[in-house]
Amino acid sequence: LANAERDGFILQVGDQSIESATAKTKKHFHSEVFAFNIENEHDRTTYISKADLVISLLPPALHILAAKDCLKFGKNLITASYISNELKQMEAEVLSKNLLFLCECGLDPGIDHMSAMEIIHRLKSDGYTLSAFSSYTGGLVAPESNDNPWGYKFSWNPRNVIVAGQGTARYIANGKYHYLPYNRLFKEIVRIEVDELGGFDGYANRDSLSYRQHYGLDNIPTLIRGTLRQEGYCSAWQIFVTLGMADDTFTVENSEQLTYAEFTEACLPQSAIGNNVTEKLLNYFELNQDSDEYKKIESTGIFSNEKINLKNATPAMILQQLLQSKWVLKEEDKDMIVMQHNFEFTKLNKQYKLDSTLVVIGDNNIQTAMAKTVGLPLGIIARKVVKNEVLSKGVVMPVDKNIYQPILDDLNEMGIRFKEKMKEL
Amino acid sequence: LANAERDGFILQVGDQSIESATAKTKKHFHSEVFAFNIENEHDRTTYISKADLVISLLPPALHILAAKDCLKFGKNLITASYISNELKQMEAEVLSKNLLFLCECGLDPGIDHMSAMEIIHRLKSDGYTLSAFSSYTGGLVAPESNDNPWGYKFSWNPRNVIVAGQGTARYIANGKYHYLPYNRLFKEIVRIEVDELGGFDGYANRDSLSYRQHYGLDNIPTLIRGTLRQEGYCSAWQIFVTLGMADDTFTVENSEQLTYAEFTEACLPQSAIGNNVTEKLLNYFELNQDSDEYKKIESTGIFSNEKINLKNATPAMILQQLLQSKWVLKEEDKDMIVMQHNFEFTKLNKQYKLDSTLVVIGDNNIQTAMAKTVGLPLGIIARKVVKNEVLSKGVVMPVDKNIYQPILDDLNEMGIRFKEKMKEL
Repeated sequence: LANAERDGFILQVGDQSIESATAKTKKHFHSEVFAFNIENEHDRTTYISKADLVISLLPPALHILAAKDCLKFGKNLITASYISNELKQMEAEVLSKNLLFLCECGLDPGIDHMSAMEIIHRLKSDGYTLSAFSSYTGGLVAPESNDNPWGYKFSWNPRNVIVAGQGTARYIANGKYHYLPYNRLFKEIVRIEVDELGGFDGYANRDSLSYRQHYGLDNIPTLIRGTLRQEGYCSAWQIFVTLGMADDTFTVENSEQLTYAEFTEACLPQSAIGNNVTEKLLNYFELNQDSDEYKKIESTGIFSNEKINLKNATPAMILQQLLQSKWVLKEEDKDMIVMQHNFEFTKLNKQYKLDSTLVVIGDNNIQTAMAKTVGLPLGIIARKVVKNEVLSKGVVMPVDKNIYQPILDDLNEMGIRFKEKMKEL
Repeated sequence: LANAERDGFILQVGDQSIESATAKTKKHFHSEVFAFNIENEHDRTTYISKADLVISLLPPALHILAAKDCLKFGKNLITASYISNELKQMEAEVLSKNLLFLCECGLDPGIDHMSAMEIIHRLKSDGYTLSAFSSYTGGLVAPESNDNPWGYKFSWNPRNVIVAGQGTARYIANGKYHYLPYNRLFKEIVRIEVDELGGFDGYANRDSLSYRQHYGLDNIPTLIRGTLRQEGYCSAWQIFVTLGMADDTFTVENSEQLTYAEFTEACLPQSAIGNNVTEKLLNYFELNQDSDEYKKIESTGIFSNEKINLKNATPAMILQQLLQSKWVLKEEDKDMIVMQHNFEFTKLNKQYKLDSTLVVIGDNNIQTAMAKTVGLPLGIIARKVVKNEVLSKGVVMPVDKNIYQPILDDLNEMGIRFKEKMKEL
């Protein structure tokens, strides 16, 4: 909206709740708001057919509905979500209509691709050969607002934090593939150092292998992508994994009648020894009450005698309800995005290492670092697309210079910039 | 077929391969064989419309195709598979046509339900109050054919053995619910004693809780159903679980080019210490080469330098290929079914315990104990249903006396019988 008058565009915001949309546009004179339900064909036809460009901020599974009508009415589309198989399969049609469906254009996926590709292209054009690339991103809480034992507060979809990592992570290190099942994911972590912030836990994301192709690094011997958490988070979270408390595949019997303590006891082994659930957990995991893990676990309230009061809840839903009440960003709280890329590369028999780190601090619990880093890349590239300044067509992620460069340049002006450190090994 | 002449029926056997069907009926003069594809509507119409009763031995997901045409043509149906939700939803229509769709009528599910219900009904009518019921079944190998370290050979679908237990097991013990995730399933086992055979490992099956209702034991404080394996099997299988080697949700990169040893190394932690994959596994699991676990693991061939030679294989497919070559029932091998129910109950302030155990040994690798115990209940009840001797209607499992009693009586005559031991506690 800050550019709307200069560029001469109207930002139309559709939402199920017109009040919610209005709260965001604040009746800016270059904005229009309207009640909109993506599952209503009339709504889609009305608003997509008259748009110059569609930015879909829908839940990922619903983008496809917007995409089909964008294809029908010949409109470009931008999202911050992973390219689904369904969307990828539309590529031939998208190309035949000379359209751009630009996805993965937020933070992660988004800025991660852009900033990595900028460095990869630069190193390659400088004649370096890349031997290793690892990249970690975390949506965290700023040090000044870090007042719980986990060092974590929700700045995006809490459910995704609860069920994170279920499945098997895949990456390649020194030319060897590694498959890391959920039961070991939070045990096999790396330490990521960030200037002035200290060390973080990094755990592997689901599928790093496909990025060799996406990034044009088909034969790189090491490629791993992962998630950052405050140091110590992962070893405590592993307790929930071992207890099955993040399982989202079945409903707990009588969940609304149980207390959190009873639920926790039901997840502990029948053989666990102790006079109460706390003792049983301490004994089973061989922890003492002074340990960091125990303090974290205890702080969540899983030993509380309060009723869960959720009907037909899965373990993940119960854990989410508990954590959402504890890990909330208060009005004055600031969240923090940390992203770090680590590259290793060679030229003329010399080995080098380059770390590139982004730290973004939010303003408050509305203007979060998460909202900025997911939203700004979309806004920046939307302006370029409507002005026909982007050459790419098809169903793509932002790995081409003509897409990532203008975004990174504008982000840089807004203070969202990476710091690089390079050294010879 | 042994009863076909006396009863005056013709057994029609349809199979994709007419040779395979003929090999089973051996051209018995009361049999007919025909080429049959359940997915071909013409085949279904032709053969289901003229049958008196349909016995479906199809893979579970295909029963529904037979069921829909049984409903259309007004035919009774029998299967040995779990009642699917899809099938259960047909119940009103099945009842409106006065039909019986009798499912779960093999071994497990099947004989387990029947034999348990026979005892439950007897104890209840004798005035006992049940306080605990546990039931374990295993499709194993007979002691005389037990010549591998696992004490296991495949007598049914190998894939189901490989992926067994994925998800979260649920049971109730002493009035408390227990949820047991896959990562701990093979660690939290019970020892089941069988006369003359010794001890077995018992691990919990997926959902024991629903059986409280099915068995009319809605308020029983303890109910657990599980699977039996030779003692020591579970602690070794836990190694595959921890390594993620039974995962069936993703394909291993270049699986056809890898050796088994390379695949195993890819599943071990990157941090595992050792000069080769064997040392890494021993170190990671803190095992020595004389341990039973190591001998079992080593015997499977997962350290072999042979090529896997399977394209786009999941870890589970690779493990299955390996075990299918090792755990095969040879022609003269005998398999063994072991089923044990344990009941606890009270009357007049006295506590009692009753164990009921079935052991069935196969004749060879065709006439297996598995084939007999899955097939005979179906054959027995089919004769009763066509003679209109079964009163039940609807989509049911064999928990009513009018179904289970004739089956158990006939099985008893064939030597398939439980031994009971009751004692006061």
